[in-house]
This record gives sequence, structure tokens and C-alpha cells, in this order.
Amino acid sequence: MDNPSLKNSTTHAVAEIREALGDRLSTAQAVRDQHGKDQTWNPGAPPDAVAFVHNTDEVQKVVAICAKYGTPVIPYGTGTSLEGHFTAPFGGVSIDLSAMNNILEVNAADLDARVQAGVTRKQLNSHLRDQGLFFPVDPGADASLGGMAATRASGTNAVRYGTMRENVLNVTAVMANGEIIRTGSRAKKSSAGYDLTRLLVGSEGTLGVITEVALKLYGIPESIVSAVCPFPSVEACCNATITAIQMGLPIARIELVDEEHVKAFNAYSKIDLQVKPTLFLEFHGTTASAQEQAETFAAIAEDLDGGPYRWATKEEDRQKLWQARHDAFWATKSLVPGKDAFATDVCVPISRLAECVTETQADLAANNLYGPIVGHVGDGNFHVVMFCDRADPAEVRRVKEVYGRMIDRAIAMGGTCTGEHGIGSGKVAYLEKEHGPALAFMRDIKRALDPRNIMNPGKNAAI
Amino acid sequence: MDNPSLKNSTTHAVAEIREALGDRLSTAQAVRDQHGKDQTWNPGAPPDAVAFVHNTDEVQKVVAICAKYGTPVIPYGTGTSLEGHFTAPFGGVSIDLSAMNNILEVNAADLDARVQAGVTRKQLNSHLRDQGLFFPVDPGADASLGGMAATRASGTNAVRYGTMRENVLNVTAVMANGEIIRTGSRAKKSSAGYDLTRLLVGSEGTLGVITEVALKLYGIPESIVSAVCPFPSVEACCNATITAIQMGLPIARIELVDEEHVKAFNAYSKIDLQVKPTLFLEFHGTTASAQEQAETFAAIAEDLDGGPYRWATKEEDRQKLWQARHDAFWATKSLVPGKDAFATDVCVPISRLAECVTETQADLAANNLYGPIVGHVGDGNFHVVMFCDRADPAEVRRVKEVYGRMIDRAIAMGGTCTGEHGIGSGKVAYLEKEHGPALAFMRDIKRALDPRNIMNPGKNAAI
Repeated sequence: MDNPSLKNSTTHAVAEIREALGDRLSTAQAVRDQHGKDQTWNPGAPPDAVAFVHNTDEVQKVVAICAKYGTPVIPYGTGTSLEGHFTAPFGGVSIDLSAMNNILEVNAADLDARVQAGVTRKQLNSHLRDQGLFFPVDPGADASLGGMAATRASGTNAVRYGTMRENVLNVTAVMANGEIIRTGSRAKKSSAGYDLTRLLVGSEGTLGVITEVALKLYGIPESIVSAVCPFPSVEACCNATITAIQMGLPIARIELVDEEHVKAFNAYSKIDLQVKPTLFLEFHGTTASAQEQAETFAAIAEDLDGGPYRWATKEEDRQKLWQARHDAFWATKSLVPGKDAFATDVCVPISRLAECVTETQADLAANNLYGPIVGHVGDGNFHVVMFCDRADPAEVRRVKEVYGRMIDRAIAMGGTCTGEHGIGSGKVAYLEKEHGPALAFMRDIKRALDPRNIMNPGKNAAI
Repeated sequence: MDNPSLKNSTTHAVAEIREALGDRLSTAQAVRDQHGKDQTWNPGAPPDAVAFVHNTDEVQKVVAICAKYGTPVIPYGTGTSLEGHFTAPFGGVSIDLSAMNNILEVNAADLDARVQAGVTRKQLNSHLRDQGLFFPVDPGADASLGGMAATRASGTNAVRYGTMRENVLNVTAVMANGEIIRTGSRAKKSSAGYDLTRLLVGSEGTLGVITEVALKLYGIPESIVSAVCPFPSVEACCNATITAIQMGLPIARIELVDEEHVKAFNAYSKIDLQVKPTLFLEFHGTTASAQEQAETFAAIAEDLDGGPYRWATKEEDRQKLWQARHDAFWATKSLVPGKDAFATDVCVPISRLAECVTETQADLAANNLYGPIVGHVGDGNFHVVMFCDRADPAEVRRVKEVYGRMIDRAIAMGGTCTGEHGIGSGKVAYLEKEHGPALAFMRDIKRALDPRNIMNPGKNAAI
């Protein structure tokens, strides 16, 4: 990190980029700091400069210059990473794509769109609404679609609509050697060649800079029905979910919130839910089919002593329920003022979810930690936010130990160390534990496509 | 291909494999020929030997021996390739995985299964039926699931359930250096590391030999409704499809058959369909929702002058309809006895499908060729089978020219040179046309993972 020749070469790279971009290349400390620190505990590291680009050709120019000098290149979207994806531990140039916010095409007949990488999901959905279309992947934050592709984001709708893995048709990317590629056609399916789209989705900027994304769209459903349903236990919540999914019930959202969250929602969002493990649900379809789905789920819940089941079909009531769910972080945080939040997620086969959640809850309790849990339970994915006083080293240690055991437990149950937050710099240590000998092949690919390791070094499979 | 040192090293490799496998290593001419020629026009090339393996460890042994001698390794499943995937243009050892036919696990709660690569889709579905589960991907042939994963197969159900890309959870593979990897966990989603699963799916044996596959399963729907509906034109069929998909109608199958096929069905399968472009449809759901879907589609069809709409809810009637569709090849072939069939497929954005099909039909007519068309129209994917007298060089030339223009047309419309048949040896020339500069990165990956090019050389991105 203190390699003087690197610093020197970076100086040359920065000077050349300034020639190309003028004052859209910044080395101001405040800008560098903002581009070098995510919203979590992950250690920050500012880049040497930030390039504010407008199009793929400018990204190509920046990457080509960096390639010439061996200078690291770190893509930056909206800065909503939870795993230090965009920090610059080896310095280099942050490429800020947020001004690349043009929606390039919407093809209603084909249910696809093409956007620049900096377009955010809310921006796209506002644009699409009048055409009766939407893009479903919803990681919570109003992230950029390029960043969401690069980190294989997902969220509450993934149980029905899939993650970015399923919803990216192709990407345009600038590779480490400065070449621009498009990874596929607009065809819905293809058997032609290696799946570079899926290779770049989730590669977190370590193989190329995604500059444009083609996405699948969906028609806004005729009817949306939301519901909440308390259950006697986390296990009952999970069993209801398993039954519903086995029946093929096409649930659009099925979210577990634990008792700690329900308490916080009641206080923060002024709603009056029973303090029990609860499922937040949403059904999409025609009026008749959404209704039928909701009734079928109510019957499943009743069999598992769930209920009373509370419906919301009116937009206003639905918004109130989901707003409470979306405010989960702030609701819990308000109960422990002054504490820092340590957020993480894992994902396991759904049959193991109840066990994984309850063991994690027991571990939190045994370590005297406040760590409320929410889960995208239809996918077996859940989040823990542990609140902690960072000035208390014993508490910090307990948080880290519970965190490590949670990941080990998920992997031992046939799951993954992260369902949707990604590896970034935060979970690099767990890649080998999860993938074993497969990691070496990821690194072979990284070396083949980026032999000088300039693309987001230190993240994911990049060493 | 006539490299004497290769031949010599192959002799050593074969001798070592025989030590390991005994009489499960065959060099009999008939066996080699059977493993070196697919069911099409693609030129055959027999391997030097065929290894009949029983498990992943045996595959590893064979690959390690071949790696030592630089001998090509060609995986073989059921031999149902249409693009010469398993021919041996550089000789080498064919690994026949058909005896690896154990279903290793079925996890009903998680809706997943793990099978050895030689298990066929029909075998798996027979096994699953009693549990109310099924695996949807249906390429027509009773292919092995390892082969289907390796070639990114799809078929009639893909419009609703996706292709092998969406339905493979992870694979176990033996890589070129003899290492065994598993490409992911059993979690439904993950953001941990590069997507090696999707990289191996569709790599056609050029990056590794897939020996086990973990798959997503689905509950058998409560109700299945089939229908056929004639339309005044191919365009009307496509427009009905676009409308249905835009509305979010979750159609399970929507198949275009052209007038030539309808004539052939009526003659071969003794049914009495109107001789018009026709959609074969299937709706899955609860009794109420499948019925609602079918009625909604009927209304769409009526608006486009489609109909009369013929339903089939009884298993027997459904079977008769779909049997006709599945017998499409034999039905058309029976009309042109003595001619050879040249089958190919392309896939385009659905908005361009009508245009692509009608231009192709016009080209066939202008060249006096009989080339009936069927299409997985919900995905924009269609097949042409051109019948031709191979002893007539002028006709063969016309077939090849129409074929080339069909692919050029699909690529120009934003589509792909193959939706589901794959590249194999048959479409290698079109990879560059479709992928442009991206192909170089596929080849970089190939070289990185298989520097001596022993894994199925001559196919896909392997040179």
C-alpha cells in the first residue's frame, strides 16, 4: 500500500485523466473521503482521485489510462454498499458513474430496458410507471442499477421475480485492457457461448466496469394484496413459507420479522402489531388470483396457529405496512440510541432457516447483544443488525464472534456467507470457507481477465 | 489432427485408463463410432476410446490421466446433441456418463434435488411424481441432466420456469487439472464470489466435466389446462403472445406451429386442426387460476381474430394435443420420405419474432425448400427443420444459404444464433459474429482454466 512507484504512476494516471475530463476529475479530500467509506464498520480507504464520467467511452479512457500505469480502478454508484465494495485499500481512481443516468431504451413489447449504470431503481420505476411496467429487484436502498448488477443485489421481491442474476439480460462493460464488450444479445435465452453476463453480475467491479445494463421488466400487476400474520414461533413462520412455496403459491414478498422488530415497529411506526414473530406478505395477480393466493395463505397460517391475519388491499394501508418494514433499521436503532449498527446477512436452504435463525437468536441472547432479525424467508435469506458500543472492546469482540459463528452455521447448513450484501472487502475471508477448491478457479479467471489486478483490488476473488 | 505425438500420448493415456477401469474402457470401433456422431449433418469424428464411468472419482481419474498426456476429454450423456457437441475432431477419450444415473438427494421442503450427471429428465420426473414434484426443463429428447446443464438446454416450459440457466443450483465438475469443485451451495441465492455455476452451464464440456447437478424443483400444479388456437397469421400469434406476457399471464407453454406443421399433424396424428398458424398453450395453477388464465387468453385471441379456441382439461385430451406437438419432426418427415433433415434454431426479441419467422418463411419459399417452423414463441425462440436431398448439391447449397441468412437475420434483430441447441462444433463460426470482442474474453477464460485445451477441443469458445 505504500509502494512509492505505484503512487508515482498514479500521479501520472491522474494527470492524464484530468486532461481528458477536466474538472470532472477531483482530488479534493472531501470527495475522496466520500468515495472511500461505506455506511458500515468496514474500514474506509479513500481513492487518490475520483473521475465523474458521462458515458462508456469516458470510462474506457479512464480505464485505458489506469491500465497503462497499473493504477487501481474502483467503480462507484450510489455508495450504498454494506461490505466496503468501493473502498480503495491500494489507492487508485474511483470512477463515479452516478451522472450516467440516462434511460437508453424501454421496449414495452419485449419487456426489457437498457439503462446507463448510474440510473437508480427508483428512477427507472418512475419512468416506467406510465407504461404499466416495473422493475422488481428492490434491495431497500435506492441503489444504481449498475451497482446492483455488479453486486448481484436482490431484496424483498426476489422470491417471485428473482435477483439481478435472473433479471439482467446483458451488460456493457469496460474490461481491464480497456476493451468495451457487450455480454449478450436482447434474446430472452441463448445457448451461444459462455455466460459472461452472469460472470460479470456479482463480480463487484473486479473483472470489468459495468457501464450499461439491459434489464427484464414486468407488467404492474392488476391487483396487489398485502397482509401481516403473527405466528407462535419463527419455526411456524418458516413452515408456513415452506408449505406455500411447495404448493406453488406465487408469493411476491414474504418477509419474516422477529419479535424485536415488531416491538420497534409498534413504537416507531405507530402500528399495533401483536408482539410475535410475524410474516409480512404480498400477493400479485389478477384481482381474483391475488385474492385466491391471500386466502390460500390464510388457510396455511391457520393450520400453523398463525393469525389473526390482517389484510390490506388499499394502496394507503399497504404503504403503511411496508413503510414499517422498510423502516426496520431506523425503528430498531431508535431503541438503542448511541449504539453503532453492524449489519450482515446469510442465506440457507429454507428447511434449515428456522434452525439457523433460532440458533442465531440464542447466540445473541447468550452474548447479551441486541440483534433484531428480518428475513426474506422465501429465499432462506436473513439479516441481523447487531447494535454495539464501539468504545466497548468486549462488546465489539462478542459481536464479531457471533458474526463469525452465524456465517459458519450458514455454510455448515449448506448455505452461503451472504445472500445479497456481497463479499466486497468485508467477507473476503469467507470466500474460501464457502467455495473451497472452487475459489482457485475464480482467481484464475480474475488473473486471466485482469493480469495486473487493477480492477477493484482487494475485493471479492481479487487478491 | 494427424499429430503423431498426440496419437502416441493418447495410446499411453488409454492404457492407463484401462488399468483403472478394466473393461469399462472400450476401443471397439462400433462404440467409438456411436460416441462420435450426433443425429444431424454435423460431421462425425470418433474418439480414440470410450470410458464408461460410475462416479465423480472415476471421472477425476480419467481426466487426470488425460491431463498428464494432453489427451482430449469429451463428455457424453445420451447422445441427443443437435450440434455435434460430443464429436472428437482431435481424437481423445469420450467419457460416457450414462451409467452415473443415481438420484442422490431430493429435498422436498427446499424444492431441490441432486443427481448424477447421467440421470435423464424423464427418470427424475418419474422418481419425483409420487412426491407431487417435477423438474420443468424439457428439451424434447430424454436428455441427461448433466448434458442439459452443459448445453444450457431449455424447451417448451422455459417461458414460465426458465432454462437450465435458472434451474441449476450448482454443479460438481472435474476441471482440466483434475480438481473436483462444487460451484455453489444449496442456498437459493448468493452474492458470494463469481458465478461459476452459470459459467459451467452452457460451456459444453470445454471448461470441465459436469458430474453432478443440483436442480430446482417445483410442485406439480393442481390444475393443468391445455388449448389450441388458430390465428389468421404468424403475426397475430406473436401479437397474442406479446399481449399475454405483458399482462403478466403466467403461461406455462405457448408454442407456435406453422401451417406446414398443422397439415402434417392432421395427417400423422389424426387430429383435425384448421390449417392456419396455431398456438398450442398450457396453463398451470389452481383450478380457478388456470381457468382464469385460459379465459383471459381466449379473450386476447378473439381480439386478434384468433379461434375457435379448443380446450383440453382432461389428461387424455391434453396428451393427444401435446403428443401431436412432440411428434412434429416425425409428422413433417413423413411428408417428404427419403429426405434428410437439417434442424436449427435462433432466438430474437419477441417484438421481432413475427418478422423473423415470416422473412425466413419467404426465404424458404423463394428457395423452393420445405422447412416447417415451430417456435417457443413466449421466448422468441423458433426452430426450422429444412428437408433436403443430400445427393442434390444445389439443394444442399440452398439449405446452407437459407440457414446462414436466418442466423444473420436473428443477430441483426438483436437476437442470438441459437436459443437452445448450442454451439457445439456446428455453430462455432457464428460465435464471433454474435459476441464480437466479448469472444476474446471467453477464450481468455478457456485458456486460463484449460491451458492445454484438453476439454472438448474444437467446440464452443474452445479453439
